[in-house]
Amino acid sequence: MKKVVLAYSGGLDTSCAIKWLKDKGWDVVAYVGDVGQGEDFSLVEKRALKTGASKVYVGDLKGEFISDFILPALQARAAYEGKYLLATALTRPLIAKHLVEVAHREKAQAVAHGCTGKGNDQVRFEVTSRILDPKLQIVAPVREWEFKSREEEIDYAKAKGIPLTVTKKKVYSIDKNLWGISIECGVLEDPYVEPPKDAYQMTVAAEDAPDKPTYIEIDFEKGIPVGINGKKYDLQGLIAHLHEVAGKNGVGRVDMVENRLVGIKSREIYEFPAATCLYTAHRELEALVLDRELLHFKESLAPKYGEMVYYGLWYSELKNALDAFIKETQKRVTGSVRLKLHKGSCVVVGRKSVHSLYKEDLATYTEKDKFDQKLADGFIRLWGLPFQMRP
Amino acid sequence: MKKVVLAYSGGLDTSCAIKWLKDKGWDVVAYVGDVGQGEDFSLVEKRALKTGASKVYVGDLKGEFISDFILPALQARAAYEGKYLLATALTRPLIAKHLVEVAHREKAQAVAHGCTGKGNDQVRFEVTSRILDPKLQIVAPVREWEFKSREEEIDYAKAKGIPLTVTKKKVYSIDKNLWGISIECGVLEDPYVEPPKDAYQMTVAAEDAPDKPTYIEIDFEKGIPVGINGKKYDLQGLIAHLHEVAGKNGVGRVDMVENRLVGIKSREIYEFPAATCLYTAHRELEALVLDRELLHFKESLAPKYGEMVYYGLWYSELKNALDAFIKETQKRVTGSVRLKLHKGSCVVVGRKSVHSLYKEDLATYTEKDKFDQKLADGFIRLWGLPFQMRP
Amino acid sequence: MKKVVLAYSGGLDTSCAIKWLKDKGWDVVAYVGDVGQGEDFSLVEKRALKTGASKVYVGDLKGEFISDFILPALQARAAYEGKYLLATALTRPLIAKHLVEVAHREKAQAVAHGCTGKGNDQVRFEVTSRILDPKLQIVAPVREWEFKSREEEIDYAKAKGIPLTVTKKKVYSIDKNLWGISIECGVLEDPYVEPPKDAYQMTVAAEDAPDKPTYIEIDFEKGIPVGINGKKYDLQGLIAHLHEVAGKNGVGRVDMVENRLVGIKSREIYEFPAATCLYTAHRELEALVLDRELLHFKESLAPKYGEMVYYGLWYSELKNALDAFIKETQKRVTGSVRLKLHKGSCVVVGRKSVHSLYKEDLATYTEKDKFDQKLADGFIRLWGLPFQMRP
Amino acid sequence: MKKVVLAYSGGLDTSCAIKWLKDKGWDVVAYVGDVGQGEDFSLVEKRALKTGASKVYVGDLKGEFISDFILPALQARAAYEGKYLLATALTRPLIAKHLVEVAHREKAQAVAHGCTGKGNDQVRFEVTSRILDPKLQIVAPVREWEFKSREEEIDYAKAKGIPLTVTKKKVYSIDKNLWGISIECGVLEDPYVEPPKDAYQMTVAAEDAPDKPTYIEIDFEKGIPVGINGKKYDLQGLIAHLHEVAGKNGVGRVDMVENRLVGIKSREIYEFPAATCLYTAHRELEALVLDRELLHFKESLAPKYGEMVYYGLWYSELKNALDAFIKETQKRVTGSVRLKLHKGSCVVVGRKSVHSLYKEDLATYTEKDKFDQKLADGFIRLWGLPFQMRP
Repeated sequence: MKKVVLAYSGGLDTSCAIKWLKDKGWDVVAYVGDVGQGEDFSLVEKRALKTGASKVYVGDLKGEFISDFILPALQARAAYEGKYLLATALTRPLIAKHLVEVAHREKAQAVAHGCTGKGNDQVRFEVTSRILDPKLQIVAPVREWEFKSREEEIDYAKAKGIPLTVTKKKVYSIDKNLWGISIECGVLEDPYVEPPKDAYQMTVAAEDAPDKPTYIEIDFEKGIPVGINGKKYDLQGLIAHLHEVAGKNGVGRVDMVENRLVGIKSREIYEFPAATCLYTAHRELEALVLDRELLHFKESLAPKYGEMVYYGLWYSELKNALDAFIKETQKRVTGSVRLKLHKGSCVVVGRKSVHSLYKEDLATYTEKDKFDQKLADGFIRLWGLPFQMRP
Repeated sequence: MKKVVLAYSGGLDTSCAIKWLKDKGWDVVAYVGDVGQGEDFSLVEKRALKTGASKVYVGDLKGEFISDFILPALQARAAYEGKYLLATALTRPLIAKHLVEVAHREKAQAVAHGCTGKGNDQVRFEVTSRILDPKLQIVAPVREWEFKSREEEIDYAKAKGIPLTVTKKKVYSIDKNLWGISIECGVLEDPYVEPPKDAYQMTVAAEDAPDKPTYIEIDFEKGIPVGINGKKYDLQGLIAHLHEVAGKNGVGRVDMVENRLVGIKSREIYEFPAATCLYTAHRELEALVLDRELLHFKESLAPKYGEMVYYGLWYSELKNALDAFIKETQKRVTGSVRLKLHKGSCVVVGRKSVHSLYKEDLATYTEKDKFDQKLADGFIRLWGLPFQMRP
Repeated sequence: MKKVVLAYSGGLDTSCAIKWLKDKGWDVVAYVGDVGQGEDFSLVEKRALKTGASKVYVGDLKGEFISDFILPALQARAAYEGKYLLATALTRPLIAKHLVEVAHREKAQAVAHGCTGKGNDQVRFEVTSRILDPKLQIVAPVREWEFKSREEEIDYAKAKGIPLTVTKKKVYSIDKNLWGISIECGVLEDPYVEPPKDAYQMTVAAEDAPDKPTYIEIDFEKGIPVGINGKKYDLQGLIAHLHEVAGKNGVGRVDMVENRLVGIKSREIYEFPAATCLYTAHRELEALVLDRELLHFKESLAPKYGEMVYYGLWYSELKNALDAFIKETQKRVTGSVRLKLHKGSCVVVGRKSVHSLYKEDLATYTEKDKFDQKLADGFIRLWGLPFQMRP
Repeated sequence: MKKVVLAYSGGLDTSCAIKWLKDKGWDVVAYVGDVGQGEDFSLVEKRALKTGASKVYVGDLKGEFISDFILPALQARAAYEGKYLLATALTRPLIAKHLVEVAHREKAQAVAHGCTGKGNDQVRFEVTSRILDPKLQIVAPVREWEFKSREEEIDYAKAKGIPLTVTKKKVYSIDKNLWGISIECGVLEDPYVEPPKDAYQMTVAAEDAPDKPTYIEIDFEKGIPVGINGKKYDLQGLIAHLHEVAGKNGVGRVDMVENRLVGIKSREIYEFPAATCLYTAHRELEALVLDRELLHFKESLAPKYGEMVYYGLWYSELKNALDAFIKETQKRVTGSVRLKLHKGSCVVVGRKSVHSLYKEDLATYTEKDKFDQKLADGFIRLWGLPFQMRP
């Protein structure tokens, strides 16, 4: 009997997918990747088995997610279209990699996912799988089956005896992990309508945030966040702490219309409380310790890195080479940045570093000034020379 | 007698410069450019004459500043190092252009400015002047004279009978125009210290802003902001209105360490209340109406455009060609963007356009969906093909 | 009866396509675009009608091809992967535009082309058609029909009574127009094998070229080639003349492995005798008259422009905006460039322009030197300052 | 007595510089860097001592030049303005680094060079020196002394008893090393004049090259050239061999007008016989083994890398990070490329690799074809979707 490893979430789509795959003659192994979505995985495991999976794997991917995916993306300050800080997009190659590994262990002929045919995640799963093992077949039940609406799918689930958790109408479609969350559907599909308060999951509304600002100081060592207010944290603990502090100050919301890889625009709501703080602080520290040429050039790579992740090309050679570049730039990114979190805003109010290239004796306008202003004339004349020689 | 046209502000530096130039044998014509700094220009004029200028020009440059400098920069969303929205940097080529014109009218042999030898403005003045007329001599008194400190300069002014307005010690060095303000010196020279409340001139602190958010809707026609909340404004009135609304909500502050062209890092505080709203809204409208390729590419030009302005290359041919590109992209940038201004933050909550490329029937997950999911398989296979063919 | 407008070449594929479309129930209108391929179009027209087309249009597109496609691409010096000067790729959007126009005139429901499903041309035809009229249906017979090999297709043609010109086995697949030629198939599919002499159509082998070099001087006015050796030419005549002169000197061959948009690499042989001369001369003239910033930036756009054309995005807004940029840069590109054509090589040996920014009195090392070397010290110190301040 | 380490070549300028520095009170240590210029270094050493140097170092830098400078630049295919393959520019940071090292060993307070004040080399020497040790003083005698012409300088040399090798008027100014040569001055200062035959040093004129082409096959391992025609070479031997083979076929000449960093355009003649072959072959091999995204992006870095070298920023952090990127890309650049050298041209005629991404079964138009053309429709529709949705 042919065997498939399915990326299983415990939700309606992937539960129906188990049944659908079995009906197509597949032995279904369910793979559940824990990327910090905060599920009860023993329940998820039971549901998979009850729905018909022959076996279930639950992989704790949180450590790998943080060290191999979040950290490089943070150091690159990768963003898609300047606003999307990539949480979901970063988990797809990670989960797909483990799907392929389980498929090899289980001697399966195929992997499967529950993604829709109009989103980005299908691309990320499939491209990753084909890069890592082009011989593995890929099945995409949600793209192939015949249901015309969610109602039809629920009818199918009921008919097949699939245990449903969806009792009331789901308002939003949500994907969560330890780095952030994405929220779609419902009223959010009208890009002119302000997202209702209940759409947000990790942050309070600015109106409901404390009147007094919260100051935090984030410490970096060679580009890695290592502490807050002088206290050491491992990266997972640091992210969790920032989510809490930033979230209660309403920091980290994004409302955007973005361009999907498959050619359509969609309106997306995101929350990145920790990432917002870390991107802001990391940027400011680099502004202090990197020279102009390096800073400007590195910033030009952030959109490219963001596109590579968004477009499902995490395991491409170009992404690897960008990582090598980024890694080389982080050697001196050590120091601390003070942030003020307040009513939805996260602003820098101070930065310091042992590697600071800011030199007060060159910058000052006091009598401590050591800058030799006589040099400017020669500089300006040669700087402007190419442009002035017009006939 | 040789004649020089000096860019005159009425402050200590340029007042001393008049005397210094006269002592060097120059007939000094003072040129005062009104870019919205909000001075009493009749007083400035009198001071120039009293200090020794043989003639004073006051040019109202506000209209030209807005239409020929601010608008193109806004449409390019030009920024230097992602944060500096360029207010002062945009006035320098404009004033220099008029200096050159007055020099021609007055048959002067030289132009002069009161910029320090370690800043960017000297570059912008001099490069512009040399592009527009390489034969004009340039004199930079502040760079050349012998004063070692501000105190020495004040002594010189007193000795020379220059009318001083500076009675108490100036805390900050400020440059203001109708698009924004830059603030330097004093405690701000320590990049780890949070700017004191009194450093800011155009915005209240978030703590002092209203508890209730202000919503505004900005209307654009072909890339030009034309109205707020449905009411038509000319651009100058619209900017003034936004300054007020955004300023009282604490919106538009920037605190950054930046890389000056002359090779040093400096810590700068800026306020751009109107620009912050307009950049945010314009970006979001473009996200709605421009296709992915155009949007991504256009965004890659913003730092380049910002560098050209910051580096004094406004009148270069590259900047002209960038303008031609930008102008071509604005034809469909018509629509409205809703912003929520609140306690220092300015966030988008809605956007709409007759040219919107967001199509609900393609984006929706309801039964209205018209997107053909069957197309995805072929797309993904060919999209990923280059990366999977490794041996 | 439903009607389709087919891009018809007179060859086997499009002739079979007429029959195949008719069998599917279409009324077939054939459209033949003359882009300088040098066919006998009255024969092509007869063949279309004999094969079953209800009507034939022959459009002389040479003028439009040159002024609206070749000239902008030349001024951008557009190239794909640095080597492919885009001849075929430039004709596809042009022909597709006319297909759409004829479809409108004929009230047809569809357009059709004879491109294979693994090449780039299908993308160019279809994307152009959908940009210009998304409602028009597109039929791609060669991609859809059942023939497994060229032999099967020939059998079909014979069975259907399609007049065949292919008497002996075709060695190469060739696409020619007035700007260049592309050559594929046969032994060329092995990228390690040198293309045999008979593969080339427009150029002699270097071995067979004259022993004495040919010197030509190409004159440009505002970026447009207008003359050779002082004699005025219209652009079509100039291209034809260059083809002859360059071709007999063996100039203009390209042998490359390129990345198709559909995800595969292919080995391609091209000949661009005129384009090679014009790109070389235009580049050199720009090096003389454009300043450094503009030249460097403009050169960075050439690969992007090349990709836009190669990827079928001629009618995209980004390509339009790039055109606006390029056009703005050509105002001073007036002057003459001397080329030496010899045994396969085309090298610059001289250039001059009324707008030259080369100033002998600044560049010379003789006593005529006017460059003030004293300026260098200030320049170098500030230039290097950002890099030297490491602790 | 204060001590300076002078980069000494043995020529007129640096010989006069020894005397001039001594007259200014310096103890002069001469440093001669052997980068393959092919001098008799024992003579150079004697001349330095005779002219007044207190000590002479001769450093054999050839190995370091090849492994640490030429190889990374080759792998990046670094070029300035697309044509200058950087030979001289690569030696300057290398020599400056050794100057600084000798200055430390000798406890000297300064380094010195014999560069003119209008060239690029002064920038490269000084910026490197200041990056590596900002405290070292820099003296630039040629920029500071009073000679108005070469004649005055020769008079000075005669008066000071400096041994002159220049008996007849030098026609050209030449800088040579093992990677290439640059030629300036004399008639070459007119960019419209074809360089005379005698200007070239390493290559014969095409007219004088053999009538029969020479074929060579260059083997690469992980981006490093390791053999020719199957025979192994170390890199120095390989370069030498290529110089001979390419030089006698007239391959490697460059005639260009370039933009110097100090703001002027100059006309330069270069010869890069080996580099021309290696750049051509390396590019073609990468086209075979790198995927499209990586290849396109990597090619966009070549001008940037070239600028970094040309502008004297070899030891900057950005150049280091670019190196990390490039290095990561070379892992699969293993294979062989066949070149045809003939009468001044160097063209690729074949390439092969164990890591080739060219797949004949996907590319072929024969019945061996495995490409599934059915995939194209979905691909093209989604590819073109963003552009077609205009209202």
